[in-house]
This record gives sequence, C-alpha cells and structure tokens, in this order.
Amino acid sequence: MRIDGRDFRTIWLDEGGRDVWVIDQRRLPHRFETLRLTSAAAVATAIADMTVRGAPLIGASAAYGMALAAAEDASEAGLERAGRMLEAARPTAVNLRWAVERMRRRLSGVAEADRIRVAYAEAAQIADQDVAVCESIGEHGGALIDAARKPGKDRIDILTHCNAGWLCAVDWGTALAPIYKAHRARLPIHVWVDETRPRNQGASLTAWELAREGVPHTVIADNAGGHLMQHGQVDLCIVGTDRTTRQGDVCNKIGTYLKALAASDNGVPFYVALPSSTVDWRISDGLAEIPIEQRGAEEVTHISGLDDEGGIRTVRLTPEGSPAANYGFDVTPARLVTALITERGVCPASEAGLTGLFGGEERAA
Amino acid sequence: MRIDGRDFRTIWLDEGGRDVWVIDQRRLPHRFETLRLTSAAAVATAIADMTVRGAPLIGASAAYGMALAAAEDASEAGLERAGRMLEAARPTAVNLRWAVERMRRRLSGVAEADRIRVAYAEAAQIADQDVAVCESIGEHGGALIDAARKPGKDRIDILTHCNAGWLCAVDWGTALAPIYKAHRARLPIHVWVDETRPRNQGASLTAWELAREGVPHTVIADNAGGHLMQHGQVDLCIVGTDRTTRQGDVCNKIGTYLKALAASDNGVPFYVALPSSTVDWRISDGLAEIPIEQRGAEEVTHISGLDDEGGIRTVRLTPEGSPAANYGFDVTPARLVTALITERGVCPASEAGLTGLFGGEERAA
Repeated sequence: MRIDGRDFRTIWLDEGGRDVWVIDQRRLPHRFETLRLTSAAAVATAIADMTVRGAPLIGASAAYGMALAAAEDASEAGLERAGRMLEAARPTAVNLRWAVERMRRRLSGVAEADRIRVAYAEAAQIADQDVAVCESIGEHGGALIDAARKPGKDRIDILTHCNAGWLCAVDWGTALAPIYKAHRARLPIHVWVDETRPRNQGASLTAWELAREGVPHTVIADNAGGHLMQHGQVDLCIVGTDRTTRQGDVCNKIGTYLKALAASDNGVPFYVALPSSTVDWRISDGLAEIPIEQRGAEEVTHISGLDDEGGIRTVRLTPEGSPAANYGFDVTPARLVTALITERGVCPASEAGLTGLFGGEERAA
Repeated sequence: MRIDGRDFRTIWLDEGGRDVWVIDQRRLPHRFETLRLTSAAAVATAIADMTVRGAPLIGASAAYGMALAAAEDASEAGLERAGRMLEAARPTAVNLRWAVERMRRRLSGVAEADRIRVAYAEAAQIADQDVAVCESIGEHGGALIDAARKPGKDRIDILTHCNAGWLCAVDWGTALAPIYKAHRARLPIHVWVDETRPRNQGASLTAWELAREGVPHTVIADNAGGHLMQHGQVDLCIVGTDRTTRQGDVCNKIGTYLKALAASDNGVPFYVALPSSTVDWRISDGLAEIPIEQRGAEEVTHISGLDDEGGIRTVRLTPEGSPAANYGFDVTPARLVTALITERGVCPASEAGLTGLFGGEERAA
C-alpha cells in the first residue's frame, strides 16, 4: 500500500538481493522508520521485540530469516540452528512455525550450493502468496461494501476493530483489504476506527494506515460503536480473526464480541475477513474450546504516546494499588456473524459455509 | 466514605463554619489534595474547571456557593449576581440550576440579617438529603447483590462502568452505594471496573474510591466485559444514569449500552441505580428524545497520566491527521435493564414500575 504516495510492502528485499527491509512498527504511528535486517538473528530479534507483528507478516519474516540463514551458512546444521532460533522468537505464533517448516522442507532436498537461490525464491513465494490471498479477500469484501450502500445516504460507514490491515500482513491486510479495494473503486466510504484498548492497535496502526492511503476515517473510543449503530451511522462492520472454528465462531481482539452484539441488535451486517489459514478445523465451539490468552496488566495500567517534546513516553493511568486484568481476545459466536469473507469468496459462518468453499485438501494443508 | 481510614465527604464546611472544603478531583487518582473555597466565585471556578464534578456534588457545591455569597453580600442584588455566576459555571448541569433556584427561593422571603444562617442551613440540608438518598439506594441495591450470590462460588463479581461513586455525590454514590453497603455487610464481593474511555473515570476515580475503602476490584479495558460475562465471571452489573426516561430507558456514559447487550446475551442481571431526581418524566423514548452531547476530540486523541518523574503529563495517542469523534453518552433501552434501584426501592424499568414508586408530587418537584 502507499505511504506518502510511494508503494510499500511491510517486508522487502534490499537492492543487493540479500538483506531484508521492514517497517519498524514499534515506532508507529508517531514515527515512520524502516530497518535493514542483515542476518537470521536480526530477523528473530525483530519478531521477538515486535518490530514486525501480525501472523502473516511474522510468517513472511521468518521465511526471509531462513533465506538469510542460508546466505550465512547453508549447511544442514546451520539451517537447523537458524530454524530453532526463529521459532523461539514468538513461541505461540502458528504462522512462524508453519513458515520455518515450509522453508526447511523446501531446502532439505536441495544441494547446498543451490540453497541460497532456492531459499530466497521460496520466501518471495510465501510473501507473494500472502499478498494474493489478501487481495482476493479485498475483492470479495469490496463487493459487500458496495452492496451496503444505502439509497439517499452520501457515504458508506464501516466500523472496524483492532488492526487487520496491511501492516499485519505483507500487503492489503484482511479486514482492511475490502476497504482499500472499495476506496480505490471510488466508493464514498468512511471508516469508524475503534481505538482498541488496551494496546490501541486501531488508534495507532489502523488510523495510520488509512490516513496514508487517504481513506476517510474517524477514531472513536471502543465504547462508541453501539451508539453509532443505534443511530444508523454504521452501514456494516468488518473485522479480522485470529482463529476461526469449523462452525464459524471467530476469536478476535477483545471487544469484537460487544460490537457483534450491537450490530445484531441494530440489524447492521457484521462481516469477518479471513485467510482460510486461520480456520482451525479441529475445533467447533469457540467459547468452550479456545483458551483466551491473558497478557500483562501493565498494558491496561500504563500507556505510551507522544509527549510535547516529541518523545515517546509511558504514563500510568490507574491508581497505585489497583490491580488490572488484560484478556487479549474474545470469541464471537457464529450466530452473530453475517458472513465470512475468504480468499475463495463469501460464505455463511457455519460448517456448511466453510466446507462449501474449502474441501479436504485445504484442511490438510 | 473512607480515605486511609478517615471519614470524608466530597464537600464539607471549614471549622470556622464559613469556608467550604472540597477534594480536588482533577488530581485523582495520582494525588489526593483538598481545596478551601472562600467565595462564591471560587466555587463557580471549581465547578467550571471540574475540581468538583458529578451532578449531585455540583448541586451541593452550588448551594454552598450561594451560602458563601450570602456571607459576602446578602442583598437581593448580591445573591442574584452570585446565582447567575454559579449557573453559568456548567451551563448544561440540571442539578446546578436546581440547587441555585432552591437556594434563591428559600432566601427570598428571609430578612437580610438572617440570610447567612438560613443559607448555610439550607445548603447543609441539600447535602444531607443527597447523602440520605444515596444511602437508601445502597440499602436497596445491597440486597440485590446478596441475592446474586451463586452457590459454590466464593465471591460475587460485580461489573460497573464509569464513576457513579461517592466522588460524584456528597457521599455513598449511586451505583457504588450498593457495593459499599455489601462490602460493609461483609459480602465477598469483587468489582470489575471498566476503565471507561475516553475520560477514564473508572480507571481513575472508581478504582481509587474502591481501593480507599478496601473493596477488592480489578480494572479492565472496556472491551473485556463481554468476555467475562461469557465465562460466568460476572454475577451482576450495576451502573448509574444521567437521565432516565418515563419508560425506564437510561442515558449513561458511552459504552453502557454495549455492557447491557452482553448482560442480556449471557443472562446476567443488569441494574441501574438512580436517585429519582434523574427521572425526566417529560420524555419516554430515550433513543429518539435524548440528544447525545459530543465532546472535544482531544479526549480521544490525548490522555494524561503519571510519568516516571511523578509529574502528570499528557501524551498524544493517535497519528497526526487522523480525526476523532467523542460521544459522551449512549442510551440503554429499558428492555435491557433488569431493574432500577432507587431511594424508594427496586422497580421494573418501565412506566408502571416508576409510577408505582413515585407519585404525582415527585414528578412536579
């Protein structure tokens, strides 16, 4: 996508064809800085310290980490060492292990002398496939935005929660891909951006992305969406999902469920955009079967922002002695989801809907 | 209520019987400071700059402002001038105008020489009546907390939104009064405190109040309540209301509606605590008839907290160039309210419920 008129992906190869560049997402939205990664170890650090984040981008980064590893030491032992180091960077990230494993498998049958070339080609393919999947989600979802247009209303208001934009992928994003497609098709869209406490990915990342692309948007407190829906100021919601069950329950950033309830109460379509790789075919009932990660309380008690002198500073919000709890995700039951937007098209949030689009071979992949 | 073991109200008379003391609520939760107000003008400033806030406390403060005015200049013209100045301090505060008007009426038939004495007595009565109303809400609501006790569960989990505690009243508060009563009755309660973005009255005021009284509590992001209710971690909700319609719709801090939806979806009782003075008998349909105040965007884009050096500092959260919107309240329809807790008892959120407790004479008052 574009930053100040220039096209970017979240990860790209240096002109020399060896080093890898990424956007330093820890500095957003207050500073745009890029970072050159020159070794597998540097990639592992960038994943661990959240310079890069978002499941698809972590996968692509790990793939390029394996390519850098091949450039450093293409031996079986060297690649094995690098793979373990990369996998340890974010222990719970499924895409990370998937990408490292795919690189390992691809390289294992290749002569050592050819491994550098093959590794860079495979990493590029992983990145390109992610872009293609997201762009396809954008095309299918863009049509839904067009369909949500209300006669006599001069704009289409879309509400989104958290950041499921191009910053979490290689390009396009998932929930934001349809929004970018609709904007490029000159639909008169406007996006309500939930700030998404406690980590504020909406206020800091989604708002920043949309502003760079010139998409009209307004940041709101997470509390405001229900009121907007009661007053006809939201035509549709689109959110992402970190994990989707066989029956179409979606586990997404904490607070998604509350917006789905409000959408249902007010007859507003509630769409969830996802690459099929987030479907966990082994589980059905999201509420019963998905454990919810608890994160550090300091994400609730403290917050960072830009101070008057242009420094990034952390301040304490809560009184000393008041504990805080920090649940990362919640589960929105399929009954509250109008439809799922996937790379193969739109389907009902149900087992029949998902199996209609995705057959046995995808489940095994 | 208690602060570090000492009993406080939010407003009290100096030992000399003339000046008025208040808690400087702008400094909470990071600093506890009290402020002596020595003139009607000082009271007006304290109301305008939110040193004191909350409808009942603003009313009591204005009453004492009129008493100070009488001590300064008890003439008809002097009181008239002071009344206009106080009313202008927060133009939309209904309690402010009500308290000034009550003081005016009480003093108009009194000889100038007696006005100081009568004014202080009337202000004290306004404050005492507020305390009595809130304590009564506490007793009626405390019984509901006891009734919500689940067999086999070792604590009663209560969720509240915003601050409807003693800091917004003279003592006890409205939504928190039942919580204080239950705590003093040694019920094993625990309170989930919604931080209540964007002004964070939950994280800063409710958490501070509860900690001072030793009530077990945990601050959560506003996004978390639905997840907690899905998993049986909330036994009941109690919130306040700024305005209640004849049919029992409640207009309260933005985000209340989302919690009411989640409570309804999960079979959790959702109670609203209110002094009958918040009932607006002229209106019925809250969604159609209550205009929602929009506040400054900087409450969403910026936030204040305690920095490492112990200073209170404001930081920017959103990117430059991303607009924000800030809706202050939302309306929770009566269908989502399990019952109203008033100073006269608990009633259904309906016209029949409210008229059952409150007859014609209260409506006219």
